[in-house]
Amino acid sequence: MTATSLRPSNRSNVAPFIAMDVLAEAARLEEAGKIIVHMEVGQPSAPAPAAALTAARAALDHGRLGYTEARGLASLRHRLVQHYGETYGVHVPEQRIVATTGSSAGFNLAFLSAFDPGDRIVLTAPGYPAYRNIIRALGLVPVEIEVGEDTRWCLTPDHLEKARADGPVKGVLVASPANPTGTMMTPDALSALVRYCDDAGIWFISDEIYHGLTYGKAQATALSTSQNAIVINSFSKFYCMTGWRIGWMVLPEVLVRPAERIAQSLYISPPELSQIAATAALDATDDLVLVRDGYARNREMLLTELPKIGFDRLLPVDGAFYIYADTRRFSANSLEFVNAMLHEAGVAATPGADFDPVHGAEFLRFSFAGAYPDMEEAVRRLKAWLG
Amino acid sequence: MTATSLRPSNRSNVAPFIAMDVLAEAARLEEAGKIIVHMEVGQPSAPAPAAALTAARAALDHGRLGYTEARGLASLRHRLVQHYGETYGVHVPEQRIVATTGSSAGFNLAFLSAFDPGDRIVLTAPGYPAYRNIIRALGLVPVEIEVGEDTRWCLTPDHLEKARADGPVKGVLVASPANPTGTMMTPDALSALVRYCDDAGIWFISDEIYHGLTYGKAQATALSTSQNAIVINSFSKFYCMTGWRIGWMVLPEVLVRPAERIAQSLYISPPELSQIAATAALDATDDLVLVRDGYARNREMLLTELPKIGFDRLLPVDGAFYIYADTRRFSANSLEFVNAMLHEAGVAATPGADFDPVHGAEFLRFSFAGAYPDMEEAVRRLKAWLG
Repeated sequence: MTATSLRPSNRSNVAPFIAMDVLAEAARLEEAGKIIVHMEVGQPSAPAPAAALTAARAALDHGRLGYTEARGLASLRHRLVQHYGETYGVHVPEQRIVATTGSSAGFNLAFLSAFDPGDRIVLTAPGYPAYRNIIRALGLVPVEIEVGEDTRWCLTPDHLEKARADGPVKGVLVASPANPTGTMMTPDALSALVRYCDDAGIWFISDEIYHGLTYGKAQATALSTSQNAIVINSFSKFYCMTGWRIGWMVLPEVLVRPAERIAQSLYISPPELSQIAATAALDATDDLVLVRDGYARNREMLLTELPKIGFDRLLPVDGAFYIYADTRRFSANSLEFVNAMLHEAGVAATPGADFDPVHGAEFLRFSFAGAYPDMEEAVRRLKAWLG
Repeated sequence: MTATSLRPSNRSNVAPFIAMDVLAEAARLEEAGKIIVHMEVGQPSAPAPAAALTAARAALDHGRLGYTEARGLASLRHRLVQHYGETYGVHVPEQRIVATTGSSAGFNLAFLSAFDPGDRIVLTAPGYPAYRNIIRALGLVPVEIEVGEDTRWCLTPDHLEKARADGPVKGVLVASPANPTGTMMTPDALSALVRYCDDAGIWFISDEIYHGLTYGKAQATALSTSQNAIVINSFSKFYCMTGWRIGWMVLPEVLVRPAERIAQSLYISPPELSQIAATAALDATDDLVLVRDGYARNREMLLTELPKIGFDRLLPVDGAFYIYADTRRFSANSLEFVNAMLHEAGVAATPGADFDPVHGAEFLRFSFAGAYPDMEEAVRRLKAWLG
C-alpha cells in the first residue's frame, strides 16, 4: 500500500449543512465588499443580554477559566432547576441536568448514550439537517417521515405506527416549535406522542430549542408528560447566545451517567465563560421578551410583504423565527434560486434541500431573527430583483 | 414493550475519564469547606495571557457573538499559518487548517472523517484515556500497544509491524510530549514513524497539544515529514486556555471537506469569543514562556522532593506537565491510594487506571501545572501523610 490508499471514511460522506455553506459564501462576498442581508442562519442579531455580558466581563477579570465538571457548573444546573419550576411548573432534579456545548453536543450525547449502530430513529421531513447528518455519521438509521398540511407538518402516533410496520423504531426526535417549518404541536398532541413512545419503549427526544419564541400558541415541555423524555435545549435562540456554544439537556436518570462518561472524553466540559454568562442570562427574561417582540414585528411585516412580491405560499409561523416558503413559482430548483438571490440580490437564505431530501427543491427558509431595518431591506431587494 | 425496555446503548458503556471524576469529587469536598491541592487535571493555574483577555473584553463590548464558519474565523486560520512558519519553518496553507472546539473536537472529527466502524487504531498504553473512549464510542477498535522503558515509552515502527501481523491497521495516534508519561520522541524517531505510516497507507495522527512545553529537548511537528499527517493541537496547555474550549487541526487536503461537513452538523462552529481570544494569544509568546519557566521550576522541585518522600520511581519528564509515578511502594491499587490521598491528605491526583488498562494500578499521575506554592504545599501534605 502507498499513501494513495489514504482516503476519507465512508461515514464522512454526509450531506453538507448548506446553511453553513451559504454563510461561508456570504462571508466571501462581504470580504469582497458586498453588503449581504443575512436570512440564512438561524441566529438572533441581538447580542447576549446585558446581564450575561456583565457576568462574562466579571469572570474575565476574576482569573482563570478552566475545565468544569463534565456536566457543567453546579450553579448553572441549579438555576435550570428553578427555570423548569417557573416556566413549566415541572420539578427537574439537578442530577438529571447536563450542561452541553450547544444543543449540538446535546444531540450527539443523546444519540451516543441511547442508541447503538443500526438503530432506527424517526425524524420529520422537513426537519433540521444536523439531526440526520449526525445520526448517519454515528451509524444510526434516520427514518424520515414526510409531514404535510394534513397534520400541520407535525408527527403523530399514526406516523409511528406506519414506521414501526417497516422495522423496530428505537427513537423519535421532534421539535416544537419546529425548524424549518415554524409549526408547533398542541400540548395535547405532544403529550399523546410522548405517551405513545413511553408505552412502546421508544426513546422520545424533544428538541425544545425554540421554546420562548412563540407568537400566541401554548408551548409545552415533554417533561410534563414523562420523565423518560430526553429534552435538548440551548441558549442560542431565545437567549441570543449562538456564538457562545452553550446549551443543556435533561436526561432520564438511567442515561445520566452514560452521557456523563461520554461527555468527559468527548467534550471534557462546556466552555466555562459561556456557562457563567448563561446562568446570568436566565435572569434576563425581561430583555429577552423585548427581543422576541422584535421577531414578532418582523414576522408580521414579512407575512404581509412577502406574499405581495410573489412568496404567496408560506407555512404557518407558530414559533421560532423561520418562514418556510414555496419557491416553485420562481424556479424548479430552490438551490439555484437561493444562489442567484445571494449573488444578484445580496439576500442570503437557505435552500429547502437542507431540510427535506424529497421536496426540498420546492422551498427555501428565511430566518427573520435579524433587525427590522434589515428585514425591510431584504423585502426591498427581493422586490427589485423579482420585479 | 414498556418503558422498562428503555436502556442506555451498549456503546455508552465506555470507561469514565477518572481525572474528571476526581475533579468532581474534589469540587464536592471544596463545597464542604476542604482545601484541595489540585494535581489531577492537566490544566494551567495561570489565566489566559493578557492579550487574549483584552481581545475578549473588546469582543464583548463590540456586540453579538455569533456562529462563524464551521472551520473557524479566517483571521485565526491565517494567524496559524504564520505560527507554523515561525515555530517550525513549515508552510501550511490556510485551507488545511480547521479551528475546533478544543482538541476533543479535533480527535472526534479526525476519527469520524478518516475511519469507519471496525477500523483498528494503534495507541500507546499508557496514553490519554479520551482517545480510547472516543474510539470505542465511535465503533472503532483501539489497539493499545504497551510501551515501556526499552523504547522510553515511545511507539516505534517495530511495534506497528507486530500490530499489523494481527490485522490491518488504519490509523496510529501518537503524542509527543506524551500524556501521562511526559516522554518525547526525538525528531528523527517521529519522522521515521510518520514515514512508516505514509508508506503503509496508515493515517498518522499527531497529538501536538503539549508542544511548547518542553524542558531542553527538541520538538518536531509531523508536518515536517508528511502532508498526510493529521495534526491536532489546542490552546488549552501552552496557551493556558483550557476552559475556553478552543483548538485546531491541520488536515491532509483530502480530509478537509469531509471534516468540515461533519463539523457543520456536529459543532456548527467553535465558540467565537474563544476564537478571537486565541488569535490574540498567538502573539503572547513572551508571557507564555514565563509561565512555562514556572512549570520548569515546579518540575525541578518535584523531581527533587518527591523521591525523598517515597515516590522514587518516576518516568522521565521531557515535556508536558506530568509526572507519572510508580505507586507500588505504597499500595497495590493506585485507585484506592489516590482516593485516600484526596480524602486524607487533600491532594488530588489521577490514578494510572485512566491511562493504562494493564499496569494502571501501579501508577498515578501528578500534574504540575499549578502554582509553585501549591506544589510545595502538596509536598508538605504528602510528606506528613506518608510519614
